[in-house]
Amino acid sequence: MRAYDLIRKKRDGGVLTAEELRFLAWGAATGSIADEQLAAFLMAVFFRGMEPRTELPAWLQAMLSSGQVLDLSRIPGRKVDKHSTGGVGDKISLPLAPLVAACGVKVPMVSGRGLGHTGGTLDKLESIPGFQTDLPIARFAELVNRLGLCLIGQTAEIAPADRKLYALRDATATVESIPLIASSILSKKLAEGIDALVLDVKVGRGAFMKELPRAQALARTMVDLCKAVGRGCTALITDMDAPLGYAVGNAVEVSESIDVLRGGGPADVRELTLLLGVEMLIAGEAPGLAGAGDPVAEARRLLESALADGSALQRFIALVEAQGGDPRCIEDPSRLPRPKAVRELRADRSGYLVALDAEAVGLAAVELGAGRARKEDKVDPAAGLLLRKRVGDDVRQGEVLAELHARDGERLEAGAKRLRTAVLIDASPPAPRALLIDRIA
Amino acid sequence: MRAYDLIRKKRDGGVLTAEELRFLAWGAATGSIADEQLAAFLMAVFFRGMEPRTELPAWLQAMLSSGQVLDLSRIPGRKVDKHSTGGVGDKISLPLAPLVAACGVKVPMVSGRGLGHTGGTLDKLESIPGFQTDLPIARFAELVNRLGLCLIGQTAEIAPADRKLYALRDATATVESIPLIASSILSKKLAEGIDALVLDVKVGRGAFMKELPRAQALARTMVDLCKAVGRGCTALITDMDAPLGYAVGNAVEVSESIDVLRGGGPADVRELTLLLGVEMLIAGEAPGLAGAGDPVAEARRLLESALADGSALQRFIALVEAQGGDPRCIEDPSRLPRPKAVRELRADRSGYLVALDAEAVGLAAVELGAGRARKEDKVDPAAGLLLRKRVGDDVRQGEVLAELHARDGERLEAGAKRLRTAVLIDASPPAPRALLIDRIA
Repeated sequence: MRAYDLIRKKRDGGVLTAEELRFLAWGAATGSIADEQLAAFLMAVFFRGMEPRTELPAWLQAMLSSGQVLDLSRIPGRKVDKHSTGGVGDKISLPLAPLVAACGVKVPMVSGRGLGHTGGTLDKLESIPGFQTDLPIARFAELVNRLGLCLIGQTAEIAPADRKLYALRDATATVESIPLIASSILSKKLAEGIDALVLDVKVGRGAFMKELPRAQALARTMVDLCKAVGRGCTALITDMDAPLGYAVGNAVEVSESIDVLRGGGPADVRELTLLLGVEMLIAGEAPGLAGAGDPVAEARRLLESALADGSALQRFIALVEAQGGDPRCIEDPSRLPRPKAVRELRADRSGYLVALDAEAVGLAAVELGAGRARKEDKVDPAAGLLLRKRVGDDVRQGEVLAELHARDGERLEAGAKRLRTAVLIDASPPAPRALLIDRIA
Repeated sequence: MRAYDLIRKKRDGGVLTAEELRFLAWGAATGSIADEQLAAFLMAVFFRGMEPRTELPAWLQAMLSSGQVLDLSRIPGRKVDKHSTGGVGDKISLPLAPLVAACGVKVPMVSGRGLGHTGGTLDKLESIPGFQTDLPIARFAELVNRLGLCLIGQTAEIAPADRKLYALRDATATVESIPLIASSILSKKLAEGIDALVLDVKVGRGAFMKELPRAQALARTMVDLCKAVGRGCTALITDMDAPLGYAVGNAVEVSESIDVLRGGGPADVRELTLLLGVEMLIAGEAPGLAGAGDPVAEARRLLESALADGSALQRFIALVEAQGGDPRCIEDPSRLPRPKAVRELRADRSGYLVALDAEAVGLAAVELGAGRARKEDKVDPAAGLLLRKRVGDDVRQGEVLAELHARDGERLEAGAKRLRTAVLIDASPPAPRALLIDRIA
């Protein structure tokens, strides 16, 4: 088999066989196919797509089989994970994973780091002093079994074909292809050995998908693809026009997540945690769902009581302790890393806050040191921002819009300058936006 | 400027600016753009094409400017070259260049080597003992001035962007793109410092373009592109279903070319030499064309008399001598390299020879050692084949169809096996095919 012939077949709109796709994924993982040939193949897929019923599932299987696929089948109960396509202030995994685990569903979660305007779960967790995200696989499985959850980073053994292809897509303008996005995400997530996946597909200014039809198409492709390889999947399409919650950064988002686990927190963060939790409890056949009632209402009730009775928070504290973090920081978030320099951003006019462009807010957090402009950048755990106003609030000239945290005044200045571009104040209030836009199952 | 943004722009159907195209050609020539990015760009061009009025000419200029462009303006008279898209038995450059030079038009010819089923002018010339094709540029210009012609190989200084991109296209299934083919050919040919180019675009089983509409589209693109950068251009579309002439190989094709220069030779080889010669004399404003008559008839008369009076042959002998070759081989072609082993292929039935698939004949010549399966292969100057029958001839069972030349019996066997697949004998005669199919100016 020759890579040339497979590129040509895809270029001409052909449907590749499972054997051909394995040859390509293996070639990407081992380096036996040249980068320029892989790049040409990816661009051909960009234009020609992949046939959804046989070709795309075979491609996903080929990507999965290029590396290690965890076998958690000896751990009793269903294993369910959540994946978000990425947003600003999206700390949902932090309250969600312990909450779902507290309700009896196992959550083996392999997460990523922040890049560009979107944050990453690993960076947030690592702002807890001592927290380790590079645990060995055996320890990961043990914690999933014992605590019901574990949160680690991607290992070199998981989907090496995707790691190679993702780097190439990033360099060759072939990221924006729905079959390539779907297979890339699922090749990493399904390697965790999960039974079902709940997707949070973001749409809006701060999301990868700016338009609803594209977000719906991606969700539909991922749900169908997941089912085609025998895993359960539902997707929520949720708003990412403005940031989620008030906190954007690392330690600040951990702190806001603790508020949610204590039964409080911003309404949107709590609500999205519950919406996704309901999907996970149903997919995970949570023990408490045995009743004859409406499973959605039942699941919501289970989740709400785990927040109210402190069991979700206790699960988070146990997780932090098990992964080497300092649990006192969870009991007292003022022990989390604190910024050296703080400043405020004030409104330059009165009116309604009609927009708070999530992408610009995310880029402001990068300027402050909370994120990465490039992969190799280091993240400052204490950097970030706390919004004081949300979209729809009325503001008076001179009122504080946000508090900015950084290492020094220079970064504060750069962050404030960028954050200013995110703010739009106008005389009339904005139309309200729904958090949950669509559900695809 | 970033390669990523230019790939993306082309991917989305944009028209790149001259500056952007220079960035890409320069990046290809110097290696400052990664192979995977160039490959993705080429695949995007495959799907999106190039806008013919401004983008494609700017791309050609960018490719040309990536390397050395000869300045032959101090040599008096117009300089005209011919380019063939490649065929089997296509030795036309050998009689054509000295014939046109003998009629007073300067021919600076930079040629290529054979690859796959098509032969190359350089390989044929090098079968003349001592013939040098890697002359310095100064010597090339001197011979064009003094003898009216010189035939050399591509130097490393000519269109380095194309050399890089051609190798990538070859590996990534992006060869078959008309704007990429046109700009690749012309970036090499126009670097010769010519005033006009005559194209021989082949169509048929042995040609790169199997279908007439594709051949016409390529010819139209190249003619318009040449004119857009201020050079004259006409294209003939000619038949390449069966090989040209009787000889396929290296020394055997030199020998057949000498027959033509002596006023004889196969009818099709002589006719195509005259057809292309007419175009070159008119484009080159040959001195003898000053008369008031029809320029085509005038040009043909000039060419025929240069064949009849021996001046074309004398010009070839002078060229061979000037480029280090043994001129006695031209006076007595039996001095050219001779094969160690010879065998015949005989007809296995009686009837009409209705097809002689040029591609299969070319591949038989490769098996015999006359061509290259891969770029790094060495060519045997004495290997090749001499057809004894042409398409349309009647043959009797057991009659000799071809004589095969090689280094040993094993190669003869492989060549004969392949050549047999080229032959189709049937009861009724084939419809006659025209040599000249179209002319595009």
